Formats: sequence, C-alpha cells, structure tokens
Amino acid sequence: MERTDKKFLFGVIGLDHDHIYGMCDGLLEAGAELKAVYDKDAQKTAQFCQKYPGVRPARCEEEILVNKEISLIASAIKPDLRCGLGIRAMNLGKDFFADKPGMLTLSEIEQVRQCHKRTGRKYMVYFSERIHVEGALFAQQLIEAGEIGEVLQVTILAPHRLRKTARPEWFFTKEQGGGIITDIGSHQIEQFLAYTGEEEVSVLHSAVANYANREYPDFEDFGEAVLRTGSGATCFFRVDWFTPDGLGTWGDGRVFIMGSRGSIEIRKYINVGETRDRDNVFLVTADREQKFTVTGKVGFPFFGDLISDCINRTEKAMAQEHVLNAMAIAIRAEHTAQRL
Amino acid sequence: MERTDKKFLFGVIGLDHDHIYGMCDGLLEAGAELKAVYDKDAQKTAQFCQKYPGVRPARCEEEILVNKEISLIASAIKPDLRCGLGIRAMNLGKDFFADKPGMLTLSEIEQVRQCHKRTGRKYMVYFSERIHVEGALFAQQLIEAGEIGEVLQVTILAPHRLRKTARPEWFFTKEQGGGIITDIGSHQIEQFLAYTGEEEVSVLHSAVANYANREYPDFEDFGEAVLRTGSGATCFFRVDWFTPDGLGTWGDGRVFIMGSRGSIEIRKYINVGETRDRDNVFLVTADREQKFTVTGKVGFPFFGDLISDCINRTEKAMAQEHVLNAMAIAIRAEHTAQRL
Repeated sequence: MERTDKKFLFGVIGLDHDHIYGMCDGLLEAGAELKAVYDKDAQKTAQFCQKYPGVRPARCEEEILVNKEISLIASAIKPDLRCGLGIRAMNLGKDFFADKPGMLTLSEIEQVRQCHKRTGRKYMVYFSERIHVEGALFAQQLIEAGEIGEVLQVTILAPHRLRKTARPEWFFTKEQGGGIITDIGSHQIEQFLAYTGEEEVSVLHSAVANYANREYPDFEDFGEAVLRTGSGATCFFRVDWFTPDGLGTWGDGRVFIMGSRGSIEIRKYINVGETRDRDNVFLVTADREQKFTVTGKVGFPFFGDLISDCINRTEKAMAQEHVLNAMAIAIRAEHTAQRL
Repeated sequence: MERTDKKFLFGVIGLDHDHIYGMCDGLLEAGAELKAVYDKDAQKTAQFCQKYPGVRPARCEEEILVNKEISLIASAIKPDLRCGLGIRAMNLGKDFFADKPGMLTLSEIEQVRQCHKRTGRKYMVYFSERIHVEGALFAQQLIEAGEIGEVLQVTILAPHRLRKTARPEWFFTKEQGGGIITDIGSHQIEQFLAYTGEEEVSVLHSAVANYANREYPDFEDFGEAVLRTGSGATCFFRVDWFTPDGLGTWGDGRVFIMGSRGSIEIRKYINVGETRDRDNVFLVTADREQKFTVTGKVGFPFFGDLISDCINRTEKAMAQEHVLNAMAIAIRAEHTAQRL
C-alpha cells in the first residue's frame, strides 16, 4: 500500500450501494482520512458510522461539499444521481470518486469532460473488478513484463449473484440503474483497455436479455459484447445475474487473456469446486505452466496513486480520459444492444 | 462401450490427418472390424498398418469402395476431397464417416443432402471435441438431467497447438483447409446445438485473423463467433492456433455453460497449472459446487450407436440434418467473418 506524507481528507455522500465500503477501505488503507458522511437514509448512515468510528455524520450534502478541509468526495449514490453530484463537487473544487457506473448517458460523459476541462478536478470511477482484485493486477504485471507477448484476445465471464429481495427498486430500472452493460459491463471494458493498453475500441456486437425476471420488464439479467481495438485485438465478455446460490462466493469471475506467446487465466474470487481461495492466476508460456496465488502479495496501488494524483495533480492512478472512454464504450454497447 | 452382435466391417481411405486414428479407435472399441486401408502415401499407409495389424492395404480407393463386405468408409483425406469421396462412397451403397470439417462450401452440403436423400446412405462427421471427450458428454448428461435448468449461454475456448513445421502445405490454404471457423469452429457449433437441443441458429458476429503467420497470407490463426438460437440462447466461441509450447497438452479446451439454475465448466484436456488429468467437470447448482473427474466413466457411445445406426438405418448417434446443419452454420460464419 502506498502512503502519502500529507494529510488527505475525504467525505462520503450517498450510500445507495455497498461498494462504498470497498471504496473507503481502499482510501483509508492508503492513508486518507474519512471526515464526514451524508446519506438521506439515517439507518444506512448509522451503520456506516459504526463501521468507521471516526467519521462525522453531516446534516446535508452541502455541509460536506463546502468543507474546505475535504479534498475528495467518494460516492455510491444511486447511478442516475452520480453525475449531477460529481459536477457539483468538481465545481466546488473537490475531486470526485464514484462507484461504477460513473455515468449513464453520453451526455453525462460530455458534461463531466467539460467540467474537468474547466475546473481541472477529477471524476474517477471505482472499477473494482480490476483495481481492487490482486489477481487482476498481477495479470497486468505479467503482461507488462512481456510474459505472453502481444494481447490478442480477452474473454471475461462476470456472473453476479442477484440477491433479488435485498435490492432496491431503482436497481431494476434502466433509467436509474443504467442497464447491465453500462453497469457491470463497464468493468469488463475497462479491463480490456487496461490489458491491451489501447483506448480506441469499437463495439462489434452487443446483446442483452431478461431471461428470468419478467416481473421487472425493464431489467436486464444478461448482457454480452464483442469489442475490437484499433490494432485488431478483440474482447468478448458476458455479464449476468445468474450466480447459483450453491457457489461459495458472489460470482465466479474469470478472465482469459490470449497473447501471441502465452496465455493467462485469472480466477478472481474462488477456485470453483477446488478451494475457497481467490486471486489464482494461471500463466502458460513457451516453457511452462505456472499457478500463482497472489492474495496479499500485490496490494491495491490505485488508492495511494489516486491520493497522490489529487495532491500533485497527476494521472498515475487512472487518466481522466480512460475513465470517460471506458464508460462511453459501455454506454454505446448498451444503447446498440439487441434484445435476445 | 456399446457393442453390436453383427459383424460390421469398415475401410479407411485417406490418412491426411491423424484424426483417422481416433476415428478408427472409436469404431474398433465399439466392435467394428477394420478391413482395408488406402492412401496414396505409402509411408503413411505402412504406419497405419503397423498400428492396426489386421488391416490390408488396398491398391487403390476403388478396391475398397466396391468391396461388398465393407459397410462404412472412414476418411481423413484432406478436407477439399472429402465431399467428393463421400458422395462416391454413398453412391456405391456405403455409409461415410469423415473427419471434420465434413464439407467446405454450402454447395457441398447441398450435394451431400441430395445424395443422402437419393441413396439413404449416411455422411457422418467426426465432431471429436464433443463425441470423443468424456467430460463433454458428461456435461450433456448433467444438462439432460435438468441440473442447470435451461441453457442460456455457452462460452467455448478452443486453443490448438500449431506444430507449424509438422503441417502439410494444404493446411495453410483456405481452399483446401476451409478456414479456421469451418475447421475448428464446426466442433464448437456442434456442441452448442447439442447442449441447447436447438437446430435453428443465426450468426450474430464472426471474425478471423492471421496474427502471427503472415508468410501464409491465406491462413487464419484465430477465429471467433457469436451465435443465437431461435429461443434466444447465445454462444461465443474462440478458436486459435496459439497454444503455448509450455502447456502439458495440445490445447486447454474449455466450455462454460450458463443455465437458468446452475452452471457447468468443462476442462477437457488438462487442469492447467494444477494436474495433468482430463475430463474435469465443475457443476454449480442452487445447493452445491461439485467437481467430477469422469475419465473412463462415460465412454463414447457415439461409435456403438453409429454402427447400430448403419445396421438398423436409425439416427441414434447423430441425425444427418444435425451434421449438415452444424457444418452449414460454420461455413456461413466463416464466409461472413470480418478480417481483424
């Protein structure tokens, strides 16, 4: 974990998704201080304060937004309110760190882009399925070390457990939730960009379905897409809400990276049918098969880098355009998806 | 292994691909007798006779084709000669069993269909990646037992080792080899049809590339496609010649089947980075994760069924239209593939 010498204070607005805990843990472990929290739901706020005893509950969003001590606002407010909140924060001189999906429309992306240009403030997105998964980060190190040559194809399976009765109503609406490719798919697209190092990506195919949740006609419980980079590498991903209850975790997330000289498989969260451990990475090269279990060995440099970026106005954690590009590709794939 | 009481004799014409050994082993284990072999290459013929001591080398194709004792001709003659040979065999009253790809063009498929209608003879294809893989057959049994509900999506990774210097020149040409989707892809399409039980399939996307073998401009070392059944299930497969030399077998073939109530993974030929055993099947349902290792436990009923079909004029092993349909979808996906 990278730490910074300077004091770095952040506040939280919006606890609609539990990802906020992952976001806060990452920032806290990297040395940030959590100052204040606001959510209109008093019970959620109380739970949050119990988890982070030093945090002060604020009376309103404004109280946090105008606090000059606070450098960054982290938010898991529901998706359709993220962009509006982020722009308010940036206009008040704060950097903003949103749960994914960061934006729901191409218009929101353009608003964020313009606001970033005008204010110089950051609008980062928590693409947890890469930046908060040591197996995923280790695979990237293997690629960067040249172990598999040029990345030619990436296949990602990203099943998620629905926990239907535990979800709020907005989760099932496209207007407030964004649709499955915009939501879960944006993670996969961000990984493809990161693993290929390319930003120019076209959508060759995308599709969504509602196979098993017809009482929510707007909901998508399945999505898939095929992407292509400018240099001809492709990505297939499938995202779904069909993780069976018998699986030992919320989803058997897998990534298969085919390179010109080797291949990598990441079993992110479980080694299904074998062991409960996570972050298993399987490398095959010209001379070997090798299994790595990297939990606790890689860390999550994104968070320390983000703090340092906010202090030094750099882009080490993630470039602003990379964030906007990943979300834009997801939204384009969502909008052009055929309904199965 | 199912055996038949009646004597069932077959002959072999064409040893261009080593798959002929798998085809013969399957038939012999199911009780057929291998009578005669012909290939224009005397060395290949000698090797074949050494492996199967009872077999008699013939002086020409005709000698086998007109032999009234022989019921079926098995052939791994090079792909562009298969259809012609098969039709000659059928016209002479023989059933025909070809290595995949069984045909290279839609016109060849139509010729086989008409010949089948006229003669009543069979033109079967060796879709080995399902019918000769116990893990793949076991997964089908799990599906048929209702373990995962309705099949919604199938993802197949089918890497193969190139062994570039060991391949004949025709292998690298599209006219004689058929292209990677027609060739290796036909296996994957056949599996999708078998696992969904559907025959109406459209091609939503397909692409091919020559990433690393530019000295053979016609060759495709990568292919991918997305298919959709009439009821809305989809399939993504990727096929390639990039198996790294460090892998303990020729390819880390995987199949992931997502059902409405559970999921299945098949690790066909190796448990990469873990163990050398094959036929590992991972089932996840509402109440459990379960690993099965099924080598030696399922057998290969296709071959006994095929012999029985030839004797009794039934379609238990595989329907003629299923064979033609799988090949037609592969050829359509190949023809419409974009070049990456």
